[in-house]
Amino acid sequence: MFEIKIDDAKYWKSCIDSIVSLIDEGSFSISKEGISLKAMDPSGISMISFFIPSKAFSTYKVESQTSIGLNLDSFSKILASARGGEQLQMKDSGKRFTIEFIGKNSRRRYTLPLIEAKKEPDKEPKIEFESFIEVRSDSLKEILKDANLLSPYISFKTDKNSFAISAKGDAGDLEEEHQSDSDYIKKLKVDKPSSSTFNLEYLSRMVSATTANSTVKLALKNEEPTKIEYNIGDAEIAYYLAPYMES
Amino acid sequence: MFEIKIDDAKYWKSCIDSIVSLIDEGSFSISKEGISLKAMDPSGISMISFFIPSKAFSTYKVESQTSIGLNLDSFSKILASARGGEQLQMKDSGKRFTIEFIGKNSRRRYTLPLIEAKKEPDKEPKIEFESFIEVRSDSLKEILKDANLLSPYISFKTDKNSFAISAKGDAGDLEEEHQSDSDYIKKLKVDKPSSSTFNLEYLSRMVSATTANSTVKLALKNEEPTKIEYNIGDAEIAYYLAPYMES
Amino acid sequence: MFEIKIDDAKYWKSCIDSIVSLIDEGSFSISKEGISLKAMDPSGISMISFFIPSKAFSTYKVESQTSIGLNLDSFSKILASARGGEQLQMKDSGKRFTIEFIGKNSRRRYTLPLIEAKKEPDKEPKIEFESFIEVRSDSLKEILKDANLLSPYISFKTDKNSFAISAKGDAGDLEEEHQSDSDYIKKLKVDKPSSSTFNLEYLSRMVSATTANSTVKLALKNEEPTKIEYNIGDAEIAYYLAPYMES
Repeated sequence: MFEIKIDDAKYWKSCIDSIVSLIDEGSFSISKEGISLKAMDPSGISMISFFIPSKAFSTYKVESQTSIGLNLDSFSKILASARGGEQLQMKDSGKRFTIEFIGKNSRRRYTLPLIEAKKEPDKEPKIEFESFIEVRSDSLKEILKDANLLSPYISFKTDKNSFAISAKGDAGDLEEEHQSDSDYIKKLKVDKPSSSTFNLEYLSRMVSATTANSTVKLALKNEEPTKIEYNIGDAEIAYYLAPYMES
Repeated sequence: MFEIKIDDAKYWKSCIDSIVSLIDEGSFSISKEGISLKAMDPSGISMISFFIPSKAFSTYKVESQTSIGLNLDSFSKILASARGGEQLQMKDSGKRFTIEFIGKNSRRRYTLPLIEAKKEPDKEPKIEFESFIEVRSDSLKEILKDANLLSPYISFKTDKNSFAISAKGDAGDLEEEHQSDSDYIKKLKVDKPSSSTFNLEYLSRMVSATTANSTVKLALKNEEPTKIEYNIGDAEIAYYLAPYMES
Repeated sequence: MFEIKIDDAKYWKSCIDSIVSLIDEGSFSISKEGISLKAMDPSGISMISFFIPSKAFSTYKVESQTSIGLNLDSFSKILASARGGEQLQMKDSGKRFTIEFIGKNSRRRYTLPLIEAKKEPDKEPKIEFESFIEVRSDSLKEILKDANLLSPYISFKTDKNSFAISAKGDAGDLEEEHQSDSDYIKKLKVDKPSSSTFNLEYLSRMVSATTANSTVKLALKNEEPTKIEYNIGDAEIAYYLAPYMES
């Protein structure tokens, strides 16, 4: 049994959107500490780890740890219907999940069926990353768009003082290099130069929910998965994406 | 023979759009009192009654009552081409209908063929409604959008002091209730509680031409058609929509 | 060998867009005077003649006249990725064409393959035009849109003191007339009244790259091709379009 309230439904929607960008349905674990979700995307090449602490909510009553499997697409669309001045309440009621918008003498209550969630991974991959890059979310989105003109894949490459991107396609090639003191780079730490190629579509979906001018952390290791992390307010979001191996 | 001028072509376009939202072609009756149109939509489940008085026009010369059958879709698109500072003139000329935009030393004249209009109903259904609700057009549009997330149908239900909406679908359910003193309700008069279910697509089209922050009047009777009324300036628009009977 | 720099990449993009609106690939001739391109569209009913003088660029080093065949669609998309504060450099390097965006401690280099360009016409048609009209680009776009409601073709007609447009279709007819002193006409010179009909789609593409409130020059001769000219900054663009002959 739980009863959770949040004053800013739009904020909660952007949190959920960071999950919806990767998976359509998933199972939230609701505990005294907060709400978390770990899931692989259906193709199995990427993973999301989401956590929002209880303090992000104005009311947070959770009796015991519960799992709530939801169609996230419906959840996100319902959250999008939030109106100014409405408070949002989420409750479980037997086999249903209730989202209630409470305005002045008006109540709007959506009830979603609980769905059987797939058995999810409980551990994140352990990788000893060798390069760490912090970039502005807007810059990273631009970089991904640049590469997308030419290829469905993008290569990341770090060097002691630079972060480079490349993409190759029939229509042409892109080579893009940012020195550690460029406007793009907020922080660059390279223990060992790393290089890997990734699926652009997945990367774009992973950064799609970032808020303007926020910071995104990339971690790389040669030919290993990348880890992409950012926060939306108090919520912590981490993605893993397997490298693309040219066959 | 008639010659009608209007200074605000954009206003006249929104009047016509209240008709186009339901039917593609129709027959205007042009008389000394004003211009009217009554029509069923092709499916036969809804009806529009439109009237604009002669005083809405800057020139209104009508010799005798005339019927003008037009492709309303073309008419609306042509009205959309109005430019600032242009005056609009409408005339009949034999078997053609002329729409002329008159600017400074520029004239743009569209000529539309007259079409054979279907025999239209001359009477509106007589229903002794039992519930009367006045809502802001924007609120009603939001409510229809809320329901549309889940179902192609929406149920309206009145009670002495409240107006409630519900929608049910595979993805979930919506229950929405507005007390008579909520911001949504401008007026609520319930002689007898009423409940009916309607097609959302038709309702959405019926309110699509309402101007921002205008008032829409709904009249309900248990399991009977609803009547939806609003004004655009001097123009009076009323729709009727048959209830959806679950089979 | 050439090395060309421009400070305003967005300006250079709108120049290229005047070409892309008509053809997908083409061959630039780069000489000491400037960059030019002449090409027929694939259907053969229209032609573009483009020229931008060397003075439009901040650096313009050209050793000898060179031809550079490019996919213009890719070129335009790459130019669209320009960011504020970036300088743009174009270079040839063997069989490749390099577009480099140079920011503060960041470099983004696109390399495009050179393509075999079709043998292009080196001469523009010689027509002794009889009517000359100057109109605002926005007005011309509106006129083309008016006609497009009814027909894929538009007829232009000049008279001593007026410029008229007509379009005929199943849904209706348009007659539009602008006196030489109307707001639409900036200049009208009619040596002999002229009348011709043209493909609207082509005309629309030809004026699509015009900047707001610029001037477009039309030249007409009875049943002959029209010439459409405008400038984008220092760049001079001229199109020819064959008349439509009703079969």
